[in-house]
Amino acid sequence: MTLPLVESVPNFSEGREEATLAALEQALRQPGVTLLGREADADHNRSVFTLAGPPHAVSAAVVAAVGVALELIDLRSHRGEHPRIGAADVIPFVPVRGLTMQDCVHLAWRTGEEIWRRYSIPVYFYEQAARLPERVRLENIRRGQFEGLRHELAASPLRAPDLGAGQLHPTAGATAVGARKFLIAYNINLKTPNLEIAQAIARKIRASSGGLPHLKAMGVMLHSRGLAQVSMNLTDYEATPIHTVFAAVQAEAAALGVEIAGSELIGFIPRRALELAFASLLRFDRFRSQAVLENALEARLESSC
Amino acid sequence: MTLPLVESVPNFSEGREEATLAALEQALRQPGVTLLGREADADHNRSVFTLAGPPHAVSAAVVAAVGVALELIDLRSHRGEHPRIGAADVIPFVPVRGLTMQDCVHLAWRTGEEIWRRYSIPVYFYEQAARLPERVRLENIRRGQFEGLRHELAASPLRAPDLGAGQLHPTAGATAVGARKFLIAYNINLKTPNLEIAQAIARKIRASSGGLPHLKAMGVMLHSRGLAQVSMNLTDYEATPIHTVFAAVQAEAAALGVEIAGSELIGFIPRRALELAFASLLRFDRFRSQAVLENALEARLESSC
Repeated sequence: MTLPLVESVPNFSEGREEATLAALEQALRQPGVTLLGREADADHNRSVFTLAGPPHAVSAAVVAAVGVALELIDLRSHRGEHPRIGAADVIPFVPVRGLTMQDCVHLAWRTGEEIWRRYSIPVYFYEQAARLPERVRLENIRRGQFEGLRHELAASPLRAPDLGAGQLHPTAGATAVGARKFLIAYNINLKTPNLEIAQAIARKIRASSGGLPHLKAMGVMLHSRGLAQVSMNLTDYEATPIHTVFAAVQAEAAALGVEIAGSELIGFIPRRALELAFASLLRFDRFRSQAVLENALEARLESSC
Repeated sequence: MTLPLVESVPNFSEGREEATLAALEQALRQPGVTLLGREADADHNRSVFTLAGPPHAVSAAVVAAVGVALELIDLRSHRGEHPRIGAADVIPFVPVRGLTMQDCVHLAWRTGEEIWRRYSIPVYFYEQAARLPERVRLENIRRGQFEGLRHELAASPLRAPDLGAGQLHPTAGATAVGARKFLIAYNINLKTPNLEIAQAIARKIRASSGGLPHLKAMGVMLHSRGLAQVSMNLTDYEATPIHTVFAAVQAEAAALGVEIAGSELIGFIPRRALELAFASLLRFDRFRSQAVLENALEARLESSC
């Protein structure tokens, strides 16, 4: 028996005021919850927290933080680069172990209901938790942002929230709550200052142009290092594993006469991704996760609880 | 703070009698100890148990099992293919995490003292726990086996045990207690039934013939599958990592026009070996172990204890 463990990565529309960030962080630090990361960007005026723990504890932590966001963030005066519709803008739940995607969908729905019931903030459900097919993609929900969405809602019921009275909360907007797979943010730096090469590789490998499924990619310039980078999101690392992405970039770069300078991760990677890479690259016929000493130990310790 | 975790892989000179194996297993199942494996070989007439846990618990488990071996195994009537000097023949301690090799050396010494004090079974210390340089290598301690060593001891003090009265226990012989790094038993199967190719690759890559440090290798024939195999022990997987070994075998095989059929592990591999392989094969500039989601979670949970 593995204890169920869920990750959540709530995004708040505040990336500058330390007092607000500290209050959000304190609200997220509920019993049983582990805070893994807190990143704030002043240009985006947005903060992203990463937390994990048992489903109920993570849900309670997120709901408490939405209350703080409601109290301290006013979207009417919010300015920032990043698109947003709410003070508590996006809340995804991600299965880590011991629970299914469907469990996370139900967790998203219950959490959304609690947010609406407690704070009167309308809720949209997205990705796997979407109740309407056009809301699978978060971009569709966020189109027009807080300001535009407010006006569209007044004119048409088509964009009405999944939970709520058909209008945004006057200061907190709306919150998108979803369930999705673990996202790996992965960059490969190239030994070239030529941005076009990174862009060409990105176009070749990404899902949107017929490349690898579940892969988003774009070319960006690292001015400080004088290197072009293929910046990627792997939205289903089991279907399109990270070592497959590395091999694809390496092959495309080689075809263009460019070498790889190195890989880097932004944020976290699940252990399973390393095991998949190891088993594939060293050509194991069968690789049992239980052959990893610590995995075997943990499995036996948990089964004896 | 990581809770210290040690592995031990005691070898007993009994591989046939289920009652004896069951009694040994029961003795090893002490509170706090996790039994990870039990393998018995009838031809070798030998059994190998793998256990892990906090140092004191693992030591106590091993000492209890030596008592069972003393009671139920009589080396005077023992026959088997594998070299041995004792009923409880070899007891290595291996640092897994949260303790140093030096800690394991002291654990080996304390455990050996307990075996001598409690059972009057003489003890030799080997590998990192050796007190004499010629006893680093277990082969030197075991030379002549139970029968030969008994006679040599009567004639000369040079081979006298590190702990004990200068003679073997009449039925239980002696026990070698040591401390060593984690050993990875790793095989690579080749797409050829030609044993000589596996033997040639093994000779090329192993430490004893100037190949990769800390690598033992031999060629063996898998008759049931019609494949030749390079069978290896990695005795220091941080100095000579498994992905380096794979690349070396692949290169030597390619030079001989042979492809790799697949890899296999015998027993366990530490998580760290997977992380080293991942970081190297995907060319990470820096790979922090804490970038693995579960590692970060565990580190934070342990630090909050």
